[in-house]
This record gives sequence, structure tokens and C-alpha cells, in this order.
Amino acid sequence: MSAPEVLYFEDFAPGRRFETASQRIDAEQIKAYARQYDPQPFHLDEEAAKASLFAGLAASGWHTASFTMRLIVDGPFRPAGGVIGAGIDEFRWPHPVRPGDTLRVVSEVVEARPSSSRPTIGIVRVRHTTLNQNAQPVLDFIANHVVQRRPQG
Amino acid sequence: MSAPEVLYFEDFAPGRRFETASQRIDAEQIKAYARQYDPQPFHLDEEAAKASLFAGLAASGWHTASFTMRLIVDGPFRPAGGVIGAGIDEFRWPHPVRPGDTLRVVSEVVEARPSSSRPTIGIVRVRHTTLNQNAQPVLDFIANHVVQRRPQG
Repeated sequence: MSAPEVLYFEDFAPGRRFETASQRIDAEQIKAYARQYDPQPFHLDEEAAKASLFAGLAASGWHTASFTMRLIVDGPFRPAGGVIGAGIDEFRWPHPVRPGDTLRVVSEVVEARPSSSRPTIGIVRVRHTTLNQNAQPVLDFIANHVVQRRPQG
Repeated sequence: MSAPEVLYFEDFAPGRRFETASQRIDAEQIKAYARQYDPQPFHLDEEAAKASLFAGLAASGWHTASFTMRLIVDGPFRPAGGVIGAGIDEFRWPHPVRPGDTLRVVSEVVEARPSSSRPTIGIVRVRHTTLNQNAQPVLDFIANHVVQRRPQG
């Protein structure tokens, strides 16, 4: 596989789509993340999770976000200067992530506008949707990415 | 120190504030998170980071979010049923997190409304702001928390 192409602001036409590889998430990964960053019973222990709102072990929503970031960084969405977000809008977790789920991320450019204050960059709004093996969304958000403009000349 | 009080929907009056303890974040933690979830040069290597938009090593924004979640879970903001978010709005990283920063989270209830479809829960909107040792915000967002109502009788 050749290295993914680096993309400049001008390459992000609205409607352009990117899709990552799929990656499985297991119970041990869910618990390891939770022990470090979100040690609540429903992310740590199958039995305790049954009595919770999740009715079973579920990944921390921030683990889902972190896992999503890794898929994106390893995938074809490769803006010049790196995957850098100025902020996120409409961040939702429509379905929980369960042990054994296989996740992938579909990204679609929503809008691209040059920066009014900095001529070398633009803001690209991208909807990133993380899907499980049943095509159910487990995370959905719009990121405002800071992307370099193509150098002139 | 006594265990923090568990709070029900009825306890989250708009304007009520919560503040976590402070916790230092160091370069090794920043790099360890990045190796696993966001392996981009400006989160992994001081030299490479100098040439990036961050102009120096900075924590992944998702690391800042994960670190923030741990501070919240360990702190006095303790809804019955757990810290569970139905979604996030206006998620911003106003300043980067640098090695050696000391972070804490200030949370303020913005709005609380009973669920129209489920009589046992309510939605509490809370602005969580993570501050560094210079009182600069490094993360700021509004979470829509699912919170149990106080049991009757």
C-alpha cells in the first residue's frame, strides 16, 4: 500500500468522502481505557454494568472518541499539517460500543472556507461518523479542521 | 475525606458549581496517550512539534478530554447513575495543554429539564471548563447529562 496522499485546503471539496479501515474493540481494551480515564462501573465490570443505564459493559464515550481518532489518523483523511481540530459541534453517541464491536469511520466534507485572518490556512468542516459492524452510528460529530492552503508557485 | 454525596436531577439547580482537584500532566503521559490513540508528531516528539502549528509538544485534544473526564469522575460532580453524557455541544480547545501543566475542571449547571418520555430521568446541561495553572481554558464544552430523578416516597 502506498503512503496516503497529503491533502491541502483546496482538496477538500464539500461532499468528498473518506473511509477508514475497520478495527475490533474488545472488553480488555474497554476496561484498560476506563481504569485510566473513566473508572465507572459500567465501563469496568460486566456484572455491575448490567444494572446500569447501559444494561451491559460499554466503552466510555471518550474511549470511543479516542479510538475514532486513531482510525482517522491511520486512514486516508490526511490534511497537510496534521489532523487538527479547532473545535467540535453536535457531538453525539447514538449507540453504545460493546465488547467485540468492529468500528470504522466515514468522514464527509461539509464546508470549506479560507481563514479571513490567516491567508495560509482554511477551516474545513467535516462530519465524522463512527459505525459498528451493523452500520449503527456509535459516534457522530462535526469537526472544524485547521488545514494548510496549497503553497503558491 | 468523606465520600462525595450522590446527586439526583432535583439537586442540579442552574448556577450550581462544582470544582475538581488539580492534577499535573507530564510529557510522558502526553506521549503515551498519543502512541495509542493519536500518533501525530506534535503529540509524540518535542523536536518535530516545534515545526507544527502547536510550536511545541502539546497534548492530543482527546487526551485533554480523557484527562478531564478522569478529573470529573474523581470529583464532587456525582450524579446518581453515573456521569453519562447524551451528547456534547460547543466543544472547544481554546489553549493547548503543555507538558507540566496542572489542570482542574470547573463545572456549572446551565439548565435542567425533566425527560418528556421517561419519568425517571432528566437532562442536565452542564458547562465543563478545564483550566490550566494560569487559569487559561484548555477545554470548554456543554454536556447533556442523563440524570436519575430522586425516587419518590
